[in-house]
Amino acid sequence: MAISLRRARMIIRKALEKGREMQLKPLSVVVLDAGGHVIAFEREDGAAPGRFGIAQGKAYGSVMLGMAGTAQMARAEAQAYFMAAVNGVYGGKVIPVPGGVLVRDKKGAVIGAVGVTGDSSDNDAIAAMAGIEAAGLAGEI
Amino acid sequence: MAISLRRARMIIRKALEKGREMQLKPLSVVVLDAGGHVIAFEREDGAAPGRFGIAQGKAYGSVMLGMAGTAQMARAEAQAYFMAAVNGVYGGKVIPVPGGVLVRDKKGAVIGAVGVTGDSSDNDAIAAMAGIEAAGLAGEI
Amino acid sequence: MAISLRRARMIIRKALEKGREMQLKPLSVVVLDAGGHVIAFEREDGAAPGRFGIAQGKAYGSVMLGMAGTAQMARAEAQAYFMAAVNGVYGGKVIPVPGGVLVRDKKGAVIGAVGVTGDSSDNDAIAAMAGIEAAGLAGEI
Amino acid sequence: MAISLRRARMIIRKALEKGREMQLKPLSVVVLDAGGHVIAFEREDGAAPGRFGIAQGKAYGSVMLGMAGTAQMARAEAQAYFMAAVNGVYGGKVIPVPGGVLVRDKKGAVIGAVGVTGDSSDNDAIAAMAGIEAAGLAGEI
Repeated sequence: MAISLRRARMIIRKALEKGREMQLKPLSVVVLDAGGHVIAFEREDGAAPGRFGIAQGKAYGSVMLGMAGTAQMARAEAQAYFMAAVNGVYGGKVIPVPGGVLVRDKKGAVIGAVGVTGDSSDNDAIAAMAGIEAAGLAGEI
Repeated sequence: MAISLRRARMIIRKALEKGREMQLKPLSVVVLDAGGHVIAFEREDGAAPGRFGIAQGKAYGSVMLGMAGTAQMARAEAQAYFMAAVNGVYGGKVIPVPGGVLVRDKKGAVIGAVGVTGDSSDNDAIAAMAGIEAAGLAGEI
Repeated sequence: MAISLRRARMIIRKALEKGREMQLKPLSVVVLDAGGHVIAFEREDGAAPGRFGIAQGKAYGSVMLGMAGTAQMARAEAQAYFMAAVNGVYGGKVIPVPGGVLVRDKKGAVIGAVGVTGDSSDNDAIAAMAGIEAAGLAGEI
Repeated sequence: MAISLRRARMIIRKALEKGREMQLKPLSVVVLDAGGHVIAFEREDGAAPGRFGIAQGKAYGSVMLGMAGTAQMARAEAQAYFMAAVNGVYGGKVIPVPGGVLVRDKKGAVIGAVGVTGDSSDNDAIAAMAGIEAAGLAGEI
């Protein structure tokens, strides 16, 4: 099962709605497929220009390692040089903090990831999960 | 004047609608701001996974050089080594063909660019223009 | 549908067998998934050490662009600067010649690609097709 | 003496078998030659897509530095900036943790390395050693 564009849009809209509901700073949200490639992205007005790369980096590391942002952060805290080395392998595209959320299908297979950035990492992750759940999918923070 | 997220969404939707109306292959559409940074992107179901980079490359070169895809292609045809050198400077992110369309405000200032990929370069440019005009903006192919 | 490791092995073995049957030079064969990521690779004894990158490059461009090696070569012949620019976007990983073969499922969806290198590009493509067909899949040269 | 493709296959199969026997997560295994170039690679079904780069990185640093994963990790723990600098020199391809295992011939000369990833670094190294020993070679963790 793949994440359709229709579902990716829903994830983004609902994540942004959650952000406004929680009165977060302007958010940026990306949805990647199971190969780490971009399906859809939106950056809210007022967000800093470089937010695409941060959103992508959170989601990209999640897909490529099969490990969501929280687990990546734990590894980075324990072994900073390991995550730095991983970034070398993946072209410097990994941002190992919460807000990178794995998306799984009903059998538990990873079908993509969502990356949210703009507020605190924990709030970013909450907004991502709201989007994923609204789209009827399961997320792993 | 900046391209708002609301307007970027409209550009993407209308470009995709134009593609379906013209029975083009699945399209991917990116909208960049005046600094060449991503505001929004969508890739239609069935498009190849690497389409983000191509769409971005068409729009990125347009903004960075202030020269739309058609003019970039003319320069590449006349002086391939020049566009190759430009790509060295811009980190290899420039795709110098039609489908990269400059977006101008009413005074003629460049406020961003749209990149479309998926069908022939000329059809990509037509879809991009349809989106830009539907959003009440002026495009330069 | 994804290419399983079991099937990837069969593709490689049968491609190598075809090479020996045709008395080709030592071959190297890679199988990539639908996201362009390596599932399996083998380099025959006597092949040059750098063959992994060439095999990967043939298959990688095929997946990322949704365009097999023959079509990539035609584009490169007609518009060399375009394929050079594409390579910038894809990190210099694209080798646009035959021997990069798309793999499709029964509905026609791209589920990966095979890259073969070692002999002439045309012979490489024949070996790749032999492997893909032996695995019960459809290839596009 | 070089690692033949036949032997590389045996290393991979036996490493994967060891992983299943120990009930590890899906593994990915690469075998590199004495120049750090890929001979063979396999990624088990269910492993994350980015595993090739991690497996390669473990083995690559081992060959290039003549220092197996355990020794690299010790150095990284003691002097993180040194391994970061080494990665600059080697193009960001080194993953300095266990699971990168040197392969030696009977005279003790390094003839290549095996990289395993997917479970804990220590379990990865055990699987790699099982493969190397089954192929009648000596490994250094």
